[in-house]
Amino acid sequence: MTVAEPLERLKAILAESDDFEHAEQVLDWDSRVSMPPAGAEARADVSATLTRHHHERFTSDEVGELLEQLDTLDDETDAALVRLARREWERARRIPTELAGEMAHANGVGVAAWDQAKAASDWDSFLPFLERQLELKRRYIECFPATAAAYDVLLDQYEEGMTAEQVVRVFDRLKGELVSLVERHREDALDDAPLRGPFPVAAQYEAGDCVLEAFGFEKQSWRLDETAHPFATKPGLGDIRLTTHTVETDLTSLFGTMHEFGHGVYEFDIDPALARTPLGRGTSSAIHESQSRPWENLVGRSRGFWRWFYPQLRGLFPDVLHDVEEETFFLAVNAIRPGLIRGDADEVTYGLHIILRFELEQELLTGMVAARDLPEVWNARMKEYLGVDVPDDAHGVLQDMHWSIGFFGYFPTYQLGNVISVQIWERARAELGDLEEQFALGEFGRLREWLREHVYRHGSTYPPRELLQRVTGSELDPEPYLGYLRTKFA
Amino acid sequence: MTVAEPLERLKAILAESDDFEHAEQVLDWDSRVSMPPAGAEARADVSATLTRHHHERFTSDEVGELLEQLDTLDDETDAALVRLARREWERARRIPTELAGEMAHANGVGVAAWDQAKAASDWDSFLPFLERQLELKRRYIECFPATAAAYDVLLDQYEEGMTAEQVVRVFDRLKGELVSLVERHREDALDDAPLRGPFPVAAQYEAGDCVLEAFGFEKQSWRLDETAHPFATKPGLGDIRLTTHTVETDLTSLFGTMHEFGHGVYEFDIDPALARTPLGRGTSSAIHESQSRPWENLVGRSRGFWRWFYPQLRGLFPDVLHDVEEETFFLAVNAIRPGLIRGDADEVTYGLHIILRFELEQELLTGMVAARDLPEVWNARMKEYLGVDVPDDAHGVLQDMHWSIGFFGYFPTYQLGNVISVQIWERARAELGDLEEQFALGEFGRLREWLREHVYRHGSTYPPRELLQRVTGSELDPEPYLGYLRTKFA
Repeated sequence: MTVAEPLERLKAILAESDDFEHAEQVLDWDSRVSMPPAGAEARADVSATLTRHHHERFTSDEVGELLEQLDTLDDETDAALVRLARREWERARRIPTELAGEMAHANGVGVAAWDQAKAASDWDSFLPFLERQLELKRRYIECFPATAAAYDVLLDQYEEGMTAEQVVRVFDRLKGELVSLVERHREDALDDAPLRGPFPVAAQYEAGDCVLEAFGFEKQSWRLDETAHPFATKPGLGDIRLTTHTVETDLTSLFGTMHEFGHGVYEFDIDPALARTPLGRGTSSAIHESQSRPWENLVGRSRGFWRWFYPQLRGLFPDVLHDVEEETFFLAVNAIRPGLIRGDADEVTYGLHIILRFELEQELLTGMVAARDLPEVWNARMKEYLGVDVPDDAHGVLQDMHWSIGFFGYFPTYQLGNVISVQIWERARAELGDLEEQFALGEFGRLREWLREHVYRHGSTYPPRELLQRVTGSELDPEPYLGYLRTKFA
Repeated sequence: MTVAEPLERLKAILAESDDFEHAEQVLDWDSRVSMPPAGAEARADVSATLTRHHHERFTSDEVGELLEQLDTLDDETDAALVRLARREWERARRIPTELAGEMAHANGVGVAAWDQAKAASDWDSFLPFLERQLELKRRYIECFPATAAAYDVLLDQYEEGMTAEQVVRVFDRLKGELVSLVERHREDALDDAPLRGPFPVAAQYEAGDCVLEAFGFEKQSWRLDETAHPFATKPGLGDIRLTTHTVETDLTSLFGTMHEFGHGVYEFDIDPALARTPLGRGTSSAIHESQSRPWENLVGRSRGFWRWFYPQLRGLFPDVLHDVEEETFFLAVNAIRPGLIRGDADEVTYGLHIILRFELEQELLTGMVAARDLPEVWNARMKEYLGVDVPDDAHGVLQDMHWSIGFFGYFPTYQLGNVISVQIWERARAELGDLEEQFALGEFGRLREWLREHVYRHGSTYPPRELLQRVTGSELDPEPYLGYLRTKFA
């Protein structure tokens, strides 16, 4: 029996499925970048309708039968395609269409409610939306067979095969070291004045454009917009969208832009032959973060990068930076400085922000912490881990939009991404030599090309763990990351 | 037998159908305002997929059976809903799903090709896309029973019940008068220097914002963006999007913005109870244009409007307008001045631009004019009707995007909208008295409220001809429009 016919048929269905995802991503991007606020309710209906149609089509018996016929394929890419399609089909099949629609609707109204609640630092207005998300999440988890931790069901969505236990193992290893690094550097009297601006927004965009251009952003296929909570998305081939959030009082936006570039370049450099298939996207959230975090930190906070870019930045902000030496500035952007906001955090405290969220997500799901008590618990734990006092919920529990769109289980992948990024970085440096010298010339092409060859182009051909093995020869391992931090902050 | 159940079921299907339209409108808006150019090909696939799914769902037997069960309803709105749903179902049912998908795909790649062709004034690169559109349009027409003119099938899409013969009757009445008005005023030596700028783009946006705010635009529900070829769209309730095209060398953008406001306010003021039904949109293209053209011309070129707004405009462009008196400026924006571009045209020559397009569309469809010969025919007829020499295709046959997205049959509705707008205007003035005095105070609320009451709120409850009867007591009649022009340009 030939597999050509069922394979073609499956590919056609998957291509249409990808088209639906493309549409949903444009709607999502639009709702967070463009849509007038009053449009949120109608938009949530639309998301629910598209999701239901998409879900019904994809979870059909026909897809299941095609997958069965395609059990063993010789071609490596086709086999990977069928493997991933089966994983997604089996997961989606467990979710009733109605629940899929309800979740899409809750995300649409949830993110709009979060946006307003954060702007007004009004926790009470957001609480019912969070409770609704938690209720839906519990119903979602119930669709799956019991796992060691209910949380595993959610993690597996973002990170195939990852369990809460594995995350705990890594985070436990990190937590003590991070806390002690923070303690050791709490009293460093580094001057952060050069980072407090004012930095006029238009000049920040000039700075961002300059860096993005050097990294390889080009207008034919990319765009950059302002939004409340930055993200990157690729609706489809040739359409990469970064967002950033710019305020006059700091340069966070510049690092955020570099972060989102990392997501964008991963998606952009995937082999175009994989487009409109499930393989045509990054393979997992942690691998994705392992590509965004290094452009922000390993590149964007490196000495070489600032040797190249500081003179230009100084030219853009002469009032603030005229008397600030490159070394002073370099130390300022690399200082350990416990703060309130995850997105602004340095490389050390960042992990503690994530660990806090990982713990809270689990406690919320098991009911150990009630949603209504979250601000209190949040504030207490911020004091405990980072020693900071949270002045209001906008700078506390309302700062991130993830929970408003039901993203429970995503946060840990940021920190796993940090861990993986250093594992990959060591490999790249072993092969490419000193990258800092190239960065100091404004050259980032060799790094990008190496990452394209080893990571980006494969899309989701390899599951995350296998990709990590192929690139580094190792399992997930926090030691290189800890070594990097220890050396850097010695 | 109760109708409650099939009616609810039909409404649920129509609501989902409206959600698909909402998604398609966001994708369309996005592709013309936001999408990086390289994304066009993938986007066209998405449009085709959504269109096919939507078409398949809407043209199902189930919808036909529900419509049959709902043949006679007492409630006026429900009866109107079923009437319109039946009209749309019967039209859609004739179109094979595959053809609907092909058309959506051709529109996506067509408008992207047009955008590049216009920018480069490169007719040859656009020709294959136009030929493809014509081929699809002929296949589309073949799905319908023979009509007096094949063109009637297309017209009826935009303007229920309208035929080419009726259009010809109106246009023939107009053409002679318009040509003679142009002849009579060709030699008017009005100074157009005050309209040639330069007008810095940022200040043009300030001017547009100021006018829009006075008209009733508010950011909670509306937005305004830059695009190559302006349009307005309402993806859904609470989400009104206007676009404009701003160049430093003239103020066309300001009039365009007022034009699109007219489309926007019609959609915005539709009774929210009609949302997510086929009644929740403007009733036809000509009625829509009868609401956009007056905000641009009857309001936006009126003496009262400029009494209020000219001092503010002068403040925004002191370099150009400092020495220009209000009366000089007022005459300049109302001068008859034959030109190349429809969108920039005065109220008299505008009709001739439309008549040209109406004639060419028919000739293209019958094959009397071959697509490849279009630039030559276009240029010759521009010389004949308007006495102008077309320097290149960007300022000629490539100026409008309509044909790139298969909009054949739409152009006539612009001019029918002009005709209808004056019929409605006379009625409004009879009831509201002198509007100019209010405009001179920057007050537009009474006009808007009158239009809301008589036109906007009804959405598509009444077919266009019936709405016109209800508002004006008349049939389509070009005489008030001609009377208006004769008086104005006496």
